[in-house]
Amino acid sequence: MPVQHVPVVIVGAGPAGLTVANLLRAASVDCVVLEIESREFIEQRPRAGFLEEWAVRALEQRGLADRIVERAPTHTEFEFRFERTRQRFPYTELTGHRHYVYPQPLLVTDLVREYADVRGGDIRFGVRDVELHGIDGDEPAVSYTDPDTGERLLLRCEFVAGCDGARGVTRTAMPDASTTVARHDHGVGWLALLAEAPPSSNCVILGMHPRGFAGHMARSPEITRYYLECPPGDVPENWSDDTVWSELHTRLAVDGAPPLTEGRLIEKRVLDMHGYVTEPMAYGRLYLAGDAAHLVAPIAAKGMNLALHDALLLAYALAAYCGKGDDSGLRDYSAACLRRVWHYQEFSQWLSELLHGPSSGDPFRAGAATARMRRILGSPAAATSFAELYLGKGTDH
Amino acid sequence: MPVQHVPVVIVGAGPAGLTVANLLRAASVDCVVLEIESREFIEQRPRAGFLEEWAVRALEQRGLADRIVERAPTHTEFEFRFERTRQRFPYTELTGHRHYVYPQPLLVTDLVREYADVRGGDIRFGVRDVELHGIDGDEPAVSYTDPDTGERLLLRCEFVAGCDGARGVTRTAMPDASTTVARHDHGVGWLALLAEAPPSSNCVILGMHPRGFAGHMARSPEITRYYLECPPGDVPENWSDDTVWSELHTRLAVDGAPPLTEGRLIEKRVLDMHGYVTEPMAYGRLYLAGDAAHLVAPIAAKGMNLALHDALLLAYALAAYCGKGDDSGLRDYSAACLRRVWHYQEFSQWLSELLHGPSSGDPFRAGAATARMRRILGSPAAATSFAELYLGKGTDH
Repeated sequence: MPVQHVPVVIVGAGPAGLTVANLLRAASVDCVVLEIESREFIEQRPRAGFLEEWAVRALEQRGLADRIVERAPTHTEFEFRFERTRQRFPYTELTGHRHYVYPQPLLVTDLVREYADVRGGDIRFGVRDVELHGIDGDEPAVSYTDPDTGERLLLRCEFVAGCDGARGVTRTAMPDASTTVARHDHGVGWLALLAEAPPSSNCVILGMHPRGFAGHMARSPEITRYYLECPPGDVPENWSDDTVWSELHTRLAVDGAPPLTEGRLIEKRVLDMHGYVTEPMAYGRLYLAGDAAHLVAPIAAKGMNLALHDALLLAYALAAYCGKGDDSGLRDYSAACLRRVWHYQEFSQWLSELLHGPSSGDPFRAGAATARMRRILGSPAAATSFAELYLGKGTDH
Repeated sequence: MPVQHVPVVIVGAGPAGLTVANLLRAASVDCVVLEIESREFIEQRPRAGFLEEWAVRALEQRGLADRIVERAPTHTEFEFRFERTRQRFPYTELTGHRHYVYPQPLLVTDLVREYADVRGGDIRFGVRDVELHGIDGDEPAVSYTDPDTGERLLLRCEFVAGCDGARGVTRTAMPDASTTVARHDHGVGWLALLAEAPPSSNCVILGMHPRGFAGHMARSPEITRYYLECPPGDVPENWSDDTVWSELHTRLAVDGAPPLTEGRLIEKRVLDMHGYVTEPMAYGRLYLAGDAAHLVAPIAAKGMNLALHDALLLAYALAAYCGKGDDSGLRDYSAACLRRVWHYQEFSQWLSELLHGPSSGDPFRAGAATARMRRILGSPAAATSFAELYLGKGTDH
């Protein structure tokens, strides 16, 4: 089988893998990116839409955020709706940080272009049957099947960056005996909807209601994303368009406010709200980043931001090792990532109780959720602490 | 059966009942307090030991806190112990509020003396078979058996204050159909210990450990209270003195710190960590206060403070009605109490996860608890928000 040598093999061309690739390229460390999907596919795959300001600033410092800064709308507040009232929550006023609305396909498109077209990086799309070899020794390698020739190829390397997401192969290469996988199920589903309708508010709306959480996220002047809490394991077929709009109107109703603007529903998917954390995030020569290491339920829009955080640390650590033989970054990589991962998981769980408690059917959870809401709105310290976590500020310790 | 008339009958001579009684007396509203135990018993019954500053100030303004202010030691900080390190948490610095160490028997002794001996109030100890009558009509009454004569007596009244705790009769008089009881079980027990040993620290210690929570509370120069997390439903017989000290040493160990000072164990009880909230707290002419309405697990030492909060509001509302015919306080009583009740329940649940997550056996809960801890220690806003709740500051909205 043909053999190539390259210092780093990156498995997966999502936000994590492409960020690592770009930063290694900038540090003159050679790498190859392997991706099972096509370029067209990853540039259009619908995913998360919010970038936290610290992440945008970090990408900007490394020349990777020109288009984000140029094009992304920014948000400075969201709106709570409950008991037929609305309460604006001005998180930027409290933290100085903004949210950038930049759906993952746009970020991936930018990062692929920069890596492959501008910097001439090596990225191989459509690869099949990726396998890892010898990650616990000094001579790791990754093999795959070339989609055009059907030929099996071997990439000998020094390190493997596992950036292939929750259903990827790299996380399965972590040996059970030396890894803990912590799991959490929030016990609810979200029906994710895209409507061909203009937004009914200029910001995110989080609606708590005894019938279930409802969310509104402006996407563009023509398209709005909505969410409806549903039983876990529910199927879109249970939700006719009429039912969807009726529930949205009911759960997001505010006295004196105009009703939501309806439109054709062009997407209905059920997301299960669960998460996991793999500890440690490294084994031998394999380093996981992003969803390959940890899944955070999309409740607080944290997944893409965590992936970028991992990628920045991993690229820095790999460059330091490959360039100067400094292994301190690699040794600290897992612990440094996990500090933020656990803050985000804890926050997502806390927010989940706030959003889903009122509809849990348990009067204790409902009462506690209402207290939580009143607390955020009533105490400046609680509001600031919440806003910091919502924007990921100060979560490195 | 002999009949007496009195505007208010107060069932139960704990902190809630005795505070209501004193304040009604001060407002020249006649009342009778009925208590099934003896005066000696309630003056010695071991219970909670911390008063929040707002409660002390409120009692002080009404002339009921002279001895507290004179005698109670105050705390300004506590100590976290985890991973063999210690971290002081200076809550007074963050809130301006202190904790007063004043065990319930001392407060009850003060309040009985003030009500019965100084102000000549009517309090009847050792009564048996208390029954409520007609609380949903205009002529409520309370009957009981006199312990000396064995005679049945009837007190016709305008209002009944139900202050007889979690196992009292007044809460059972609330009709199921018009009441919700929200319940929560924290899923753990605490072995409560009293040791004839000097405190090993001048403040409260909260120890998180994979083997279970351990707590240390200074009581006096000679007596120290300790807690050890145990399985729910555990029995003291499972805990020999050797096991107790061994676990305390292990769970509260800090590198470089002297070991705990041991002493004879004079109390071993298992407390189940659970709670409930009755909504609304009033029905007809019956108004519940304190544990009769809501039980908060002793995790955050909130119970006695909530009882006082209820009592202050209830006495004010009853005096306004009986004196001026103003019923606004009575109408708002339940909602006003419950705002603080739910903040304290939410906080106790949150704190329970922090203290018990590390030993839950669930790596997700353990990871989230550790993040919660790092967050309190790392973010000034999170620390302030936590300290406010710990001291009950700003929890009326």
